Amino acid sequence: MAVSRLALVGLGLIGSSIARAARAYGAAREIVATSRSPATRRRVIELGIADQVVDTNAAAVEEADLVILCIPVGQCGTVAAEIAPHLKPGAIVSDVGSVKASVVKDMAPHLPSAVHFIPAHPVAGTEHSGPDAGFAELFVNRWCILTPAPNADPAAVKTLAAFWGALGSNVETMTPEHHDLVLAVTSHLPHLIAYTIVGTADELGEVTRSEVLKFSAGGFRDFTRIAASDPTMWRDVFLANKDAVLEMLGAFNEDLSKLTRAIRRGDGDTLFDLFTRTRAIRRGIIDLGQDIEAPDFGRPHPAPAPLPRPYAAERD
Amino acid sequence: MAVSRLALVGLGLIGSSIARAARAYGAAREIVATSRSPATRRRVIELGIADQVVDTNAAAVEEADLVILCIPVGQCGTVAAEIAPHLKPGAIVSDVGSVKASVVKDMAPHLPSAVHFIPAHPVAGTEHSGPDAGFAELFVNRWCILTPAPNADPAAVKTLAAFWGALGSNVETMTPEHHDLVLAVTSHLPHLIAYTIVGTADELGEVTRSEVLKFSAGGFRDFTRIAASDPTMWRDVFLANKDAVLEMLGAFNEDLSKLTRAIRRGDGDTLFDLFTRTRAIRRGIIDLGQDIEAPDFGRPHPAPAPLPRPYAAERD
Repeated sequence: MAVSRLALVGLGLIGSSIARAARAYGAAREIVATSRSPATRRRVIELGIADQVVDTNAAAVEEADLVILCIPVGQCGTVAAEIAPHLKPGAIVSDVGSVKASVVKDMAPHLPSAVHFIPAHPVAGTEHSGPDAGFAELFVNRWCILTPAPNADPAAVKTLAAFWGALGSNVETMTPEHHDLVLAVTSHLPHLIAYTIVGTADELGEVTRSEVLKFSAGGFRDFTRIAASDPTMWRDVFLANKDAVLEMLGAFNEDLSKLTRAIRRGDGDTLFDLFTRTRAIRRGIIDLGQDIEAPDFGRPHPAPAPLPRPYAAERD
Repeated sequence: MAVSRLALVGLGLIGSSIARAARAYGAAREIVATSRSPATRRRVIELGIADQVVDTNAAAVEEADLVILCIPVGQCGTVAAEIAPHLKPGAIVSDVGSVKASVVKDMAPHLPSAVHFIPAHPVAGTEHSGPDAGFAELFVNRWCILTPAPNADPAAVKTLAAFWGALGSNVETMTPEHHDLVLAVTSHLPHLIAYTIVGTADELGEVTRSEVLKFSAGGFRDFTRIAASDPTMWRDVFLANKDAVLEMLGAFNEDLSKLTRAIRRGDGDTLFDLFTRTRAIRRGIIDLGQDIEAPDFGRPHPAPAPLPRPYAAERD
């Protein structure tokens, strides 16, 4: 059954996408939203994507059956403490954070035993932020990972899973610790590497920023999309998932050293073998429907320019 | 004026795109093509993208005004030696290699003084390979870098620049050495990093390949596109541009160490400052028309799934 009253705390890319999707797919009868930023609250009213926009977190969660915190993971503990006295007994409290173990540690101690705390992470997003960036289809065919405690109420887990299913997501359950390890490699490490390389390219003495931008179509520009992601969200992710990120960084550094050595020694076979293997992994992601087959991500290539005069004339 | 007879040696992604573009935009009156692979030659005949398909490099270049080698950089020297006796005096000989200094070193000694050797690199591509992967618009609004020797004939340089301009490219000239440094950061280092991280993710004990593929939408899948690029081409690039790649790797490693230290120490300010700066660089690339503004590269997001039954029923 649909949620009667859904409270969304935070209306950025994810929160505003949940609001749009919950309405589009009938997953909630009433949506109440809040944001700590008055500008965002005003914008959400203009966009009309929530039934009610209220000024405080306390007001948002009152009478809500499902409360979802859609805020940077570093703020989850504080907000949990703030909303705790206002939660309806039996309510489900969840979040959308990209790190789970630290969110559990930060939130759980504040929440009353009469509510069901089921952490969640929809593995979906874009590089854009804010309430205008959201859209209803963001979660369709993407995975949403739930990390309920072993003693969590199965009915509450089922309700939350059904909610995400209604938004189009595939739902999977795992422990917070395993989630953090999986996401460290599929998301956190790629972001860290992208941020690093874009920063490196911007600080070279011998190659100007203008050259980097002009010739970015050779590969660099793909990294800049990821490195354009929300700075606050990602600062919090790296601080909150420190151990798993450092572990994956260790593995990455070992592999990079091996490749560096292969280049230095002119060992083409090692390079060729890896490059052949990685091509197969791309295939697997496309086969699973997690990306599209279209070359260059299906980026629109410009329509042919009009024929330059001398050539057009000669051809006629 | 259009080239009278264009010879393309190699008909992969780039060669076949040049063939299509040269015809679409009237940049050559006649296109003769060859490939060392009989299967590719047959396919090019089927595709009908060249006026003539011949069996040998020697036959391809005879009587050609413009000869372009569209082959991995590691093969350019051998092919230059092979075609040298068959080149028409006054012909322009060029290539499309992603490395320039080594190509000059490999090719120049073989070429007769009666031809004009003007190396070139169109900074454009996709992750797909082969004659079916090409398309006429590949070079539109992308940069093509020419690296003529200081004593190159200005008229020949102008002719080649006009050819690439006719295909829709913006043309820039620089030294081979500077080219190799610029591309090391905008293209070669990003590819090396992408290949590495995709390989790392595939060899973790604690996270399965299936999990990596399923949850790749968090960022990883963007790296897999780049890591799906042609293995032979890229092996050759890293071997041929060793010094510049190792230099850029050094800078990258220093920056990655700094970020690693920031994460270990919980230094959020350092992370936040970098993440804010890199967002601006993305903006610059979009403003220059080298990528699109659409979120997620404009990947099509799936149409909304039909409403799950219980929700649809309740909503009515």
